[in-house]
Amino acid sequence: MGVPQAVRSTLRGMVSLVELIARKRDGGELAPEEIHRIIRSFMTGEMADYQMSSLLMAVFQRGMSDGETVALTEAMLQSGKVIDLSEVPGIKVDKHSTGGVGDKVSLSLVPIVAACGVPVPMVSGRGLGHTGGTLDKLEAIPGFRVDLDVGRFTSMVRELGGCMIGQTAEIAPADKRIYALRDVTATVESVPLIVASILSKKLAEGIDALVLDVKVGKGAFMKDIDRARTLARALVRVGTRAGKRVVALLTRMEEPLGRTVGNALEAREAIDLLFGRAPADLVECTEALAAEMIVLGGKADNRERALTMVRDSIQSGRAAARMQKLIEAQGGDPRVVEDTALLPQAPRVETVKAARAGWVSGIDALEVGLCAVALGAGRTRADQAVDPAVGIVIAAPYGSRVEQGSTLAELHVRSKEQADAIQARMQAAFKVDTTAPVSKSLVLERIEN
Amino acid sequence: MGVPQAVRSTLRGMVSLVELIARKRDGGELAPEEIHRIIRSFMTGEMADYQMSSLLMAVFQRGMSDGETVALTEAMLQSGKVIDLSEVPGIKVDKHSTGGVGDKVSLSLVPIVAACGVPVPMVSGRGLGHTGGTLDKLEAIPGFRVDLDVGRFTSMVRELGGCMIGQTAEIAPADKRIYALRDVTATVESVPLIVASILSKKLAEGIDALVLDVKVGKGAFMKDIDRARTLARALVRVGTRAGKRVVALLTRMEEPLGRTVGNALEAREAIDLLFGRAPADLVECTEALAAEMIVLGGKADNRERALTMVRDSIQSGRAAARMQKLIEAQGGDPRVVEDTALLPQAPRVETVKAARAGWVSGIDALEVGLCAVALGAGRTRADQAVDPAVGIVIAAPYGSRVEQGSTLAELHVRSKEQADAIQARMQAAFKVDTTAPVSKSLVLERIEN
Repeated sequence: MGVPQAVRSTLRGMVSLVELIARKRDGGELAPEEIHRIIRSFMTGEMADYQMSSLLMAVFQRGMSDGETVALTEAMLQSGKVIDLSEVPGIKVDKHSTGGVGDKVSLSLVPIVAACGVPVPMVSGRGLGHTGGTLDKLEAIPGFRVDLDVGRFTSMVRELGGCMIGQTAEIAPADKRIYALRDVTATVESVPLIVASILSKKLAEGIDALVLDVKVGKGAFMKDIDRARTLARALVRVGTRAGKRVVALLTRMEEPLGRTVGNALEAREAIDLLFGRAPADLVECTEALAAEMIVLGGKADNRERALTMVRDSIQSGRAAARMQKLIEAQGGDPRVVEDTALLPQAPRVETVKAARAGWVSGIDALEVGLCAVALGAGRTRADQAVDPAVGIVIAAPYGSRVEQGSTLAELHVRSKEQADAIQARMQAAFKVDTTAPVSKSLVLERIEN
Repeated sequence: MGVPQAVRSTLRGMVSLVELIARKRDGGELAPEEIHRIIRSFMTGEMADYQMSSLLMAVFQRGMSDGETVALTEAMLQSGKVIDLSEVPGIKVDKHSTGGVGDKVSLSLVPIVAACGVPVPMVSGRGLGHTGGTLDKLEAIPGFRVDLDVGRFTSMVRELGGCMIGQTAEIAPADKRIYALRDVTATVESVPLIVASILSKKLAEGIDALVLDVKVGKGAFMKDIDRARTLARALVRVGTRAGKRVVALLTRMEEPLGRTVGNALEAREAIDLLFGRAPADLVECTEALAAEMIVLGGKADNRERALTMVRDSIQSGRAAARMQKLIEAQGGDPRVVEDTALLPQAPRVETVKAARAGWVSGIDALEVGLCAVALGAGRTRADQAVDPAVGIVIAAPYGSRVEQGSTLAELHVRSKEQADAIQARMQAAFKVDTTAPVSKSLVLERIEN
């Protein structure tokens, strides 16, 4: 049988990494300095991948206290560069979404909130699987660069009140390595690990406050509201303990958000929102998140006032103008704001027809997201390229009345074959009932400390 | 957040390794063919170490059913060579001990049981940490070889009724790799993993029946009787389901077994047993295990009859004669049986004295084992060499009356410095009380299906 390695190192008079794994395995608590040591050892290679994955599974099973999660967040944060925005005046606020289908909120949010006087330093991700990514949507704008260096990022936040870039290799590299391990070791769905992953990256941006959009439903990571609420509460608690002001909204992600899924189509819809031309669910979501950011940013005393500021920034054209400046500063063609026809367009549009009359009482966001991936709008592996032009437009949103043969969705494709391959799935994604469904609010709950 | 790898592969229409890990993580059961696939994938490299360690931690937390444990045992067994002893007549029986301090039982057991007509194909391990190993004790006999090939092993079992070799690289290589991972990922102390590890190696020997010596106490892997019983029952159940006849004894390992700890000293004591010169605890343990093996081997109808055969094999000199033949056949000097002074001897003997008068009411086996390692009798890493000559002789066993200054133990050492380094620890390992302790049976329980 032999003597476990943990015992051998105890005999040498030091607490080994194996003993730390064993403590968590048995439901014990790790001290902050022990968690920092684990992350440091993992990054130097002293702690092997197989030891980390064993610890991750132990954390999955046994959980972590808030104190442990704060320590893990800070240790992962400190594994890389932390952007210093202290020279930028004002309370810097960012938003993070746990990911959904058709979620193009960030693209309109940054110019709106910036136009209201709150600086938004935003570091976003790419799409993976059915979940879209802000960077892919931004890159649908001709010329747009998301790989600015930290100096340029900082000066844009100072001068234009916002900047939207991708996560660099220097930000929270421990999170990057740990996330890759979690993905292949069945340890993704752990609240403390999710919390530390999200917060370590966001805190590395140099923010003072954070608004979280925790999506709930078929198209989201969290399928039910109880688990979403647990995650949102943990994010708010841990973020607050880490010294930030944090608010979370739980928002509905049963159907795709807005009417478009696909990068250029979503960029267009985000621009449309700045001209008051967006569908109600997308408007509700964007306004609610923007208002929270403005309150956290200290530019309004309450959400009602903040909401008025948001609407005014749109009606006055200031948000759209700020969008143009942001695009231009990041190398993109600013004319797309005035003329969305300059965005990439797919050569063909095919339609998905209703098989029978009735009311659209559900649109399976997961299935629509997967169909968009099948068209090439998304990726199944991190190293794949996406096609900016292709995607799906929902013609008959939730609650619509449709007749037999009327259009449920438009498929923006490269070829008819592409459309044919997803026709049946798309049709099945629409639930058509004989009675009209009740209308549902997009924002389900608000969670603060 | 992205889509977990498990989901992505589901979308491609196959159950992924990650999904299998997730199922165990959530307390589900793996089918036998899934467990076989896991082990095959691990051996081909398709399943990475970090995935295996995550699964091992999930098994640690969630356990395994007997059916799963049987499948894991057989999958690990089939990862390597299985010795075919079908051409050897009779029921082949081996013994396995979970390891302790001073446990030299195997050395006398093989000649005794072989002399009683039951073939014993024994594959043993080396010592690690405070736990000694049969191979190291055998190699203390000048010339003794434990690296015989399978052909020679088989012919010795057929012709002499026994052979004692080391585990070759071809036997259960999956177990070897998994054990190495468990050691550094805090997943050693899991009953199903221990059971599969022990049984996969033992079943690879081509045995028909197995007697297990599950040690309980300070010097053992299992410190308390409840956990030892759980392990013993699982070993018996799973071994039986795998088609073998299995019996387990729980035996006391609070004090070292017998009077000696150290390779040549233990070889001498094992030989002494064959001449009726061994201490009572060692005799009790050896006789009980031998009797079980003889009953399982079909050479006696019951244990009383088997015990008579065991004692007769010793009194008649047949066991000692068989020992000589076995040693000779494995390249060793058979004269050591008649003259144990031919075994390696340390140049110096120092003594540990009692600090006060009283009764020896405890001898900390773990501490004695670690002191022996400190002398060089054992190893802390698998690649270290051992010194066959050094070791410890218990002069005042459990229950003895000692006076102040009388000898508690002899330290067989290379130098006085070696002895000085462990003097205080050795003295502290002896508990001397003002009242005589109750005498305790060595065999605590017997477990069969």
